[in-house]
Amino acid sequence: MFYRFHFLLAVIACSGVATVGLAQDNSGGDHVIVLTDTETNTRTESLRITSKDFADVLPQNSPAWSVEKTTLHGGKQEGCELVTIDNGVLEIVVVPTRGMSVLRVTKKANSNEPDSTAARFGWDSPVKEVIHPQYINLESRGGLGWLEGFNEWMVRCGLEYAGHPGKDVFTNNVGDKVEMDLTLHGKIGNIPASKVTVTVDREAPHRIRLQGIVNERMFYGPKLELITEISVVPGEPSLRITDTLVNHGADEQEFQLIYHTNFGTPLLEKNARTVVAAEKVEPMNENAAKSIDQYASYQAPTKGFIEEVYLVYPIADASGRTQTMLVNAAGDQAASVAWNTSQLPYLTIWKNTAAEADGYVTGIEPGTGFPFNRNIERHFGRVPKLAPGQSRRFELEYGFHSGAEAVNKMEAEIRTLQTASVVLEEKSPTLPSP
Amino acid sequence: MFYRFHFLLAVIACSGVATVGLAQDNSGGDHVIVLTDTETNTRTESLRITSKDFADVLPQNSPAWSVEKTTLHGGKQEGCELVTIDNGVLEIVVVPTRGMSVLRVTKKANSNEPDSTAARFGWDSPVKEVIHPQYINLESRGGLGWLEGFNEWMVRCGLEYAGHPGKDVFTNNVGDKVEMDLTLHGKIGNIPASKVTVTVDREAPHRIRLQGIVNERMFYGPKLELITEISVVPGEPSLRITDTLVNHGADEQEFQLIYHTNFGTPLLEKNARTVVAAEKVEPMNENAAKSIDQYASYQAPTKGFIEEVYLVYPIADASGRTQTMLVNAAGDQAASVAWNTSQLPYLTIWKNTAAEADGYVTGIEPGTGFPFNRNIERHFGRVPKLAPGQSRRFELEYGFHSGAEAVNKMEAEIRTLQTASVVLEEKSPTLPSP
Amino acid sequence: MFYRFHFLLAVIACSGVATVGLAQDNSGGDHVIVLTDTETNTRTESLRITSKDFADVLPQNSPAWSVEKTTLHGGKQEGCELVTIDNGVLEIVVVPTRGMSVLRVTKKANSNEPDSTAARFGWDSPVKEVIHPQYINLESRGGLGWLEGFNEWMVRCGLEYAGHPGKDVFTNNVGDKVEMDLTLHGKIGNIPASKVTVTVDREAPHRIRLQGIVNERMFYGPKLELITEISVVPGEPSLRITDTLVNHGADEQEFQLIYHTNFGTPLLEKNARTVVAAEKVEPMNENAAKSIDQYASYQAPTKGFIEEVYLVYPIADASGRTQTMLVNAAGDQAASVAWNTSQLPYLTIWKNTAAEADGYVTGIEPGTGFPFNRNIERHFGRVPKLAPGQSRRFELEYGFHSGAEAVNKMEAEIRTLQTASVVLEEKSPTLPSP
Repeated sequence: MFYRFHFLLAVIACSGVATVGLAQDNSGGDHVIVLTDTETNTRTESLRITSKDFADVLPQNSPAWSVEKTTLHGGKQEGCELVTIDNGVLEIVVVPTRGMSVLRVTKKANSNEPDSTAARFGWDSPVKEVIHPQYINLESRGGLGWLEGFNEWMVRCGLEYAGHPGKDVFTNNVGDKVEMDLTLHGKIGNIPASKVTVTVDREAPHRIRLQGIVNERMFYGPKLELITEISVVPGEPSLRITDTLVNHGADEQEFQLIYHTNFGTPLLEKNARTVVAAEKVEPMNENAAKSIDQYASYQAPTKGFIEEVYLVYPIADASGRTQTMLVNAAGDQAASVAWNTSQLPYLTIWKNTAAEADGYVTGIEPGTGFPFNRNIERHFGRVPKLAPGQSRRFELEYGFHSGAEAVNKMEAEIRTLQTASVVLEEKSPTLPSP
Repeated sequence: MFYRFHFLLAVIACSGVATVGLAQDNSGGDHVIVLTDTETNTRTESLRITSKDFADVLPQNSPAWSVEKTTLHGGKQEGCELVTIDNGVLEIVVVPTRGMSVLRVTKKANSNEPDSTAARFGWDSPVKEVIHPQYINLESRGGLGWLEGFNEWMVRCGLEYAGHPGKDVFTNNVGDKVEMDLTLHGKIGNIPASKVTVTVDREAPHRIRLQGIVNERMFYGPKLELITEISVVPGEPSLRITDTLVNHGADEQEFQLIYHTNFGTPLLEKNARTVVAAEKVEPMNENAAKSIDQYASYQAPTKGFIEEVYLVYPIADASGRTQTMLVNAAGDQAASVAWNTSQLPYLTIWKNTAAEADGYVTGIEPGTGFPFNRNIERHFGRVPKLAPGQSRRFELEYGFHSGAEAVNKMEAEIRTLQTASVVLEEKSPTLPSP
Repeated sequence: MFYRFHFLLAVIACSGVATVGLAQDNSGGDHVIVLTDTETNTRTESLRITSKDFADVLPQNSPAWSVEKTTLHGGKQEGCELVTIDNGVLEIVVVPTRGMSVLRVTKKANSNEPDSTAARFGWDSPVKEVIHPQYINLESRGGLGWLEGFNEWMVRCGLEYAGHPGKDVFTNNVGDKVEMDLTLHGKIGNIPASKVTVTVDREAPHRIRLQGIVNERMFYGPKLELITEISVVPGEPSLRITDTLVNHGADEQEFQLIYHTNFGTPLLEKNARTVVAAEKVEPMNENAAKSIDQYASYQAPTKGFIEEVYLVYPIADASGRTQTMLVNAAGDQAASVAWNTSQLPYLTIWKNTAAEADGYVTGIEPGTGFPFNRNIERHFGRVPKLAPGQSRRFELEYGFHSGAEAVNKMEAEIRTLQTASVVLEEKSPTLPSP
């Protein structure tokens, strides 16, 4: 843990451009700047912090970086807040208004990395704007309203439920078990963060941390708090997610959490492929079963393609760490994600190589379970619970790799985990009768 | 009735802090300050009015008071407006954006009242923020979406329907009787007020009135206007609600209205109790029936406690006036409410002495009926109607009492009404088959 | 087509009054002023453009005109944007926040037109405010939530569906045909425009064009863009709508579009009547069938009147052009609409001569079909499709006529089209079994 001190920050709530008053502190704590805090009625319209503001703290040769808060206006974007982190190598756009989702990651060519090339990580959704949650009705279209806002590189699914829509039981306000309609991928991606801060570590490597607290709370329902953190080291082509989920209720609380990370062109292309270390890969339904042998490779954009979803049971090393990567056809550009299977035991690969106009995209999705409806996940024992007051931590490290050498090195690392052959199931799992 | 004149009020719509230009008037009318008015496109971001602004009108020895408008920003609070009335003894926080609900009442210790102690009236909901209605979907969770914003001291339930969710018939746009899903406690608590004004009576005792007009209107549906008023006398430990409900439609209109007033700690505690004057108390369901003998007393916070709801048929004096109070275990702190049973014939006591983390709370709820689904209330003849153009008035006087002497005096007043023994029904009412 | 250039426009996003910097251009293009553009994060709070700003471009004798952008605040209007076009004869209020609907049209008495009188075209809905879509839940009340915001003179119904609520099939994210609940009149009237511009033609007659782009897009759903345009010529008592609908998806896309144009008093009154040129008029249901003989004439406001809807199959001239008008009892005030039946083959007349308090109104509604649920419209072959990348154009010319001479001339024009007698069906169409 680290100490913190709070900078004096002149914020004009609601309107105008805030100016940062960087009241320097010599107490040795980290530097925290508050962008939003409902407890103190703080919201910044726009703000820019750069490494220059920390010139007396950072080493002379420190890479230049910036964190910029902006607010979108007009149409369905009205009031959507963005935070753009530029660590010199990656530009990461986070949307506090949409549950701290990551809209896109852009990598710059940089001299420190051999064979570095610029690339966009993200995809081209038919949803072109950053949709404010006020315009999303999760219940619409039979529980598919979430799809009206879906265009992020990484969106969390959860917290009370994270999978497919449909009926599931819950306990209502008079203690009866009744049915409710779950909505696709849950609420967390459309809840604005209650507190958003930027922290700069005082100690090397001076990691920049964007923290956002998102509450999924109600009376007679879940009292879950997700303390999200997206962090980068200046000059490094990787980003880390460190989330803490807390149950503030007096009872045990089921939860689900899936890190729905999505890639389109240029990384996704014909003959792009995933590399996983897995005990078993299962098709989610019969449509996916037909192509189980090709689960790891991708087609070109294909009009009328119906999504194929594969359920991966990852292999980890002795510490629980596993890795997965998506690599382009030439094998010289890749994105990887490493995580601990004690935190996120399952991986979903969503192949949606549809026409570009409809969204040519694949999802690499570590999770506490698979995206079946919660009643199915519960049947298979994949819905974890938090005791009252209990919290759980989830860490994911995303890497963005350029050049065949770097890509091959990463692939070799993953292959090392694959000590026995992967089992490819020919049939989708037998689901409980509804 | 009183005359009014309008102060000149410089309002910068949308942003900035408005300054009050108090154009004094000698015509003898009351002082009206407009905070919001959709007809004139007026909305104040923030504003503070104090007794000093009225120094030439109020008597020299007048208690100091203030009314302050603020607007919340960030997270799910974005855009929520608050009006805080401080009459020197009570601080009352009203939420125009949430149907003129009262978020909380705080009593200060004051020298004018014997044995006065400071206390908070309100409760600790797991919902921590003042949720803007844009983030509430009343239809979600099978019609329980209202619970995502529930944390007020007093929230009105209504107007078209006020009780439990579930199906009920209505007349649709082609004149057919069809079914619709009612949602818990209706819409009024999540409709922003269209006009909000502060009026200061020119005549003693110079009552301060916060009026808010909330419309529940639609085409092919109810055309109801609720003119709410929350008022205080400077220096007095009581507040008055004076609401007028108007049917602007051309047809008879059913309505329901429940004043859902909620108390947690410190008033609610083990051995706290309610004092009512009642002909009969009925358990709402079988779970409540088991504890009918203890309907008037409270347990300590109890994990896993399932709500118990009691249906009270109050006894009034010759003028129709009844009173109810909630008193703490020591008998030296109480809150009371007085109203006329010709306006609100029923009283619901909602006991939810759950764990503090889940919301340790009781509701004292005078209403036009009980919180069953409207189809059940209609069956029992408890859904009143307004003729075209007709209006009804609802008045409630809340008192906050400190010291055993004041509390005993209030209890004695209520006991006087209880001329015969209360009947405690052992069974919940037989409901119509669905 | 015309060329355009962009004026420099100093916009303070979110707050403050924008000032127009009219950077004159001599390149010969038209004058475009951007009011909203999500691509450039532009939104104006308020703005006023007048013919004086174009003094060096417009001819000396040009009628004075103005276009004014305002933003509403308070209550359920909070954030609603209006654009008011005043061409010297008509004042037209457009609501970009509500899908570029036209709230009302007001005609001024003017010296250029014989027998000109002032009149309001629009109606008195029980919905009094301009409701921001954040307060509309289309799913509520069994899919009738649209009615909570309905008070426009002209609101488009569509785009994916435009008629009555109820179940219809669609293809979900796993390629299955499943059922969804359609909501009344679709989404387009509650989607804010993504880009709003004002264009002034450089060439005579210097038409003023308000263009708004409204997107109805989602992942695994429609990717429709509606480029709306409402335009007027300075000094002329008519307005033109020129909409272009584009399918940006990779697949064929069904769509529906109805121009729901509504009139109340003073034009609508006892013995007001519609004039149509039609092959056939059919009652929509049995209630309308009873009054098929009076389909073209109106009653005085009648308490308890149940809507009557008539399905009109218009006759057009050789070029496809048809016209319809609504004329008052005296025959000296009328509104007409002309359109091409190759674009909009059907006309719905909605008679809702209810009590004034409930909304005394009639709808004249050219459309791609009738307002049955889409599954019924599909059954009758009235749900058109757009191929991938295809677009369709819809043009309507509304005229506002004063004086018996002008009205008679318009009626005669319509009568010319009626070459054979209209068939009045006595029965409503036989619907497919559900």
